[in-house]
Amino acid sequence: MSNVKIKAKTLAGFRDLLPAEALQKERMLSTVRKTFRQFGLAPIETPHLEYTEVLLGKGSDEIQKQLYRFRDNGDRDVTLRFDQTVPLARFVVQHRGKLGRIFKRYAIGNVFRGESPQAGRFREFTQCDFDIIGTYSMGADAETVLMIYTSLKALGIEDFTISINNRKIMNGLVDALGITSAADDVLRIVDKLDKIGVKRVGELLEQQAGIAPEKVQKVLSFITLREDNGADAFFSQIAKYEDWSPLIREGIDELKEIYKILAAAQINPKNYCIDFSVVRGLGYYTGPVFETRLDLLPQIGAVASGGRFDNLTKSFSDENLPGVGASIGIDRLLAALEKLNLIETTATPALVLVANISKENLPASYGFASQLRQAGINTEVFPEAQKLGKQFSYADKMGFNYLIAYGEREQQEQVFTLADLKSGEKTTVTTFEELIKKLS
Amino acid sequence: MSNVKIKAKTLAGFRDLLPAEALQKERMLSTVRKTFRQFGLAPIETPHLEYTEVLLGKGSDEIQKQLYRFRDNGDRDVTLRFDQTVPLARFVVQHRGKLGRIFKRYAIGNVFRGESPQAGRFREFTQCDFDIIGTYSMGADAETVLMIYTSLKALGIEDFTISINNRKIMNGLVDALGITSAADDVLRIVDKLDKIGVKRVGELLEQQAGIAPEKVQKVLSFITLREDNGADAFFSQIAKYEDWSPLIREGIDELKEIYKILAAAQINPKNYCIDFSVVRGLGYYTGPVFETRLDLLPQIGAVASGGRFDNLTKSFSDENLPGVGASIGIDRLLAALEKLNLIETTATPALVLVANISKENLPASYGFASQLRQAGINTEVFPEAQKLGKQFSYADKMGFNYLIAYGEREQQEQVFTLADLKSGEKTTVTTFEELIKKLS
Repeated sequence: MSNVKIKAKTLAGFRDLLPAEALQKERMLSTVRKTFRQFGLAPIETPHLEYTEVLLGKGSDEIQKQLYRFRDNGDRDVTLRFDQTVPLARFVVQHRGKLGRIFKRYAIGNVFRGESPQAGRFREFTQCDFDIIGTYSMGADAETVLMIYTSLKALGIEDFTISINNRKIMNGLVDALGITSAADDVLRIVDKLDKIGVKRVGELLEQQAGIAPEKVQKVLSFITLREDNGADAFFSQIAKYEDWSPLIREGIDELKEIYKILAAAQINPKNYCIDFSVVRGLGYYTGPVFETRLDLLPQIGAVASGGRFDNLTKSFSDENLPGVGASIGIDRLLAALEKLNLIETTATPALVLVANISKENLPASYGFASQLRQAGINTEVFPEAQKLGKQFSYADKMGFNYLIAYGEREQQEQVFTLADLKSGEKTTVTTFEELIKKLS
Repeated sequence: MSNVKIKAKTLAGFRDLLPAEALQKERMLSTVRKTFRQFGLAPIETPHLEYTEVLLGKGSDEIQKQLYRFRDNGDRDVTLRFDQTVPLARFVVQHRGKLGRIFKRYAIGNVFRGESPQAGRFREFTQCDFDIIGTYSMGADAETVLMIYTSLKALGIEDFTISINNRKIMNGLVDALGITSAADDVLRIVDKLDKIGVKRVGELLEQQAGIAPEKVQKVLSFITLREDNGADAFFSQIAKYEDWSPLIREGIDELKEIYKILAAAQINPKNYCIDFSVVRGLGYYTGPVFETRLDLLPQIGAVASGGRFDNLTKSFSDENLPGVGASIGIDRLLAALEKLNLIETTATPALVLVANISKENLPASYGFASQLRQAGINTEVFPEAQKLGKQFSYADKMGFNYLIAYGEREQQEQVFTLADLKSGEKTTVTTFEELIKKLS
């Protein structure tokens, strides 16, 4: 091999996860998986690479520019997946006969988008998608909210708000106001409410969407309605809009069904609310939509979003499969939890470092470590006969809780000297059982 | 959207995992992760996509033909990773200052190889890599064997053999026989022993590697040595070879050190042995090598392999970092466990299906399901008010253990009727506590 060195660097816009972060991410994913399974969802896996034709069935132009698209060695036009929803549509059509009539699945995997790099955003990131396919029942929509709620609580997050809206209501509103032709512009501008404020939304509705001032006022008073006095009061307050359009009535009825289920499941009402300014950009939503923000870090954006998409499989099949689901942005949540100091990061999953006195003692150290592991204590052995001071600084740097040396004296007398690296204390115990009790 | 449908199909050579298989794979990965952590290894993540230059530093021509290599939208020459070892080398050089002097990591992820499709082999598959970087201590090599052993045992596999060899011994052997110039051919042929048998290896050594018959005999008697009477007898038996070459002596001493540690850790000697015919194809091994086969399915090939590579970082840095590690082929193991009937597959992670009587009853059903989940019972709710018979057949097809209807009578009288779907029995219990006890 030549002596010219290759620069060790990650691809532009991509990143590595070092142990402390990767360990936390794994713990979070394990929690999220456990929650999905509680609700009866099963995992599936689809490839990272798909035929471009399959993925672009629903791709917008914007996403097309961000594609990792190329020809493989068999001259196939292929693309790295940019979400897990299009692959899901392909999956349910391809395997229809092998799946239940109701198909509940989650998929945890990486997606690729060649966006311009921004702080905290990378071109490869992990999505935790969960969806219920095959039913129009609002039970599935309510369960989507329950799964977002239960996942975030299980991750130790208390202060979050799941905002709920219904695309039918928004479509009904623009119909009722006679501004259907400007609907896309109106919804796009309304979606910015939390970023740019009411006044600016009003200006843009007039200037960009060309909406008459009195209609702008109606839109503004609608999208700023808030659930300040509880759900019942709110539904009474908005009852007058039901007469504006059958679509609005239908949309509100659906939200009421969802609310009945959320109440029956007894989740905390402070963690969810109706917000008519929530649109969710993606074109495929057709019913209820959900968006979740952390109350203490709203500026980082949505951490769990989704909605109902009743035309999911349209590009693959004449059979129209309804569905509803959401995606938890685990990378963004991880960054948020770090900011909020809700997770402690250490670079090792082990509690104990077994220090090593001499090369001759190595087998005994490994034997001792095996006993600790069998007793449920994650244990690392320092593999070399270095000075004890060096082994102590290694243990400190890595974040071990305890260092134990198991030399000849310890083996003969069966005493265990335990250095607590957090407190600096040294304890001597005389039986293995006592040692395990101390460590557990 | 046009009415022309796109064919729903996975990319040639790739595959989906359906719920039953994906569920099993997740359980296996969770077991393997737990084992790695017991030994103090922490996870890391590297991107699926890397600069081609970074990956090809150690790529052989054979692998280059299998690359998923392309130019991204920024005209960068990029490649999907084909293993996790080259990215590890890049990682340790790039993040050297942030890692411990001893760096123990695992990485579970997918790699891509455009090989010709074969039965059971796909172009994207999952590798569970684990490595100990930064030490020449044989403790790390022994621990690699211990981790393979502990992982397989934790996966419920009892009958496997970890074959251990040392590249130093093989290099010493060809030196001692004066056939160093044919070393690559000799090792390549020796590696085929288990597939083609002793006789054919002998023929190929003569015909393809051009080795003289009397030397062929020496190679053959060496590579067919077996540990039939225990480790001590074996080491006595091979002691005579130590004089053939200092490299052989060094290699045998290293194996003795590993064996001392394996004995101290008290793992079952029937699960490991020395086998001088194990070579491991990859060019980068420099010391002990490991290869694991299932005793009941040897034909599926190695399920966990690795070895010591003391020149890992050579192409990125002047600092030479030694390391040792292995990889567990989880996809191959999953297929094997299915063949051996060592796993049961169901399409749902939930135990209970809550059937649903009427649309009005939906909130009560979801409320009841929430209670079951909080009591630790994975539960799905049937989201529609279908005939009970249909809900029963859904529950059967999906593999639920129990179906519970929670209608008005059940709510008023607090009785729970539990249909055991495996036995066909129906039981009525009268308290929630009793129900949970039955289900747990």
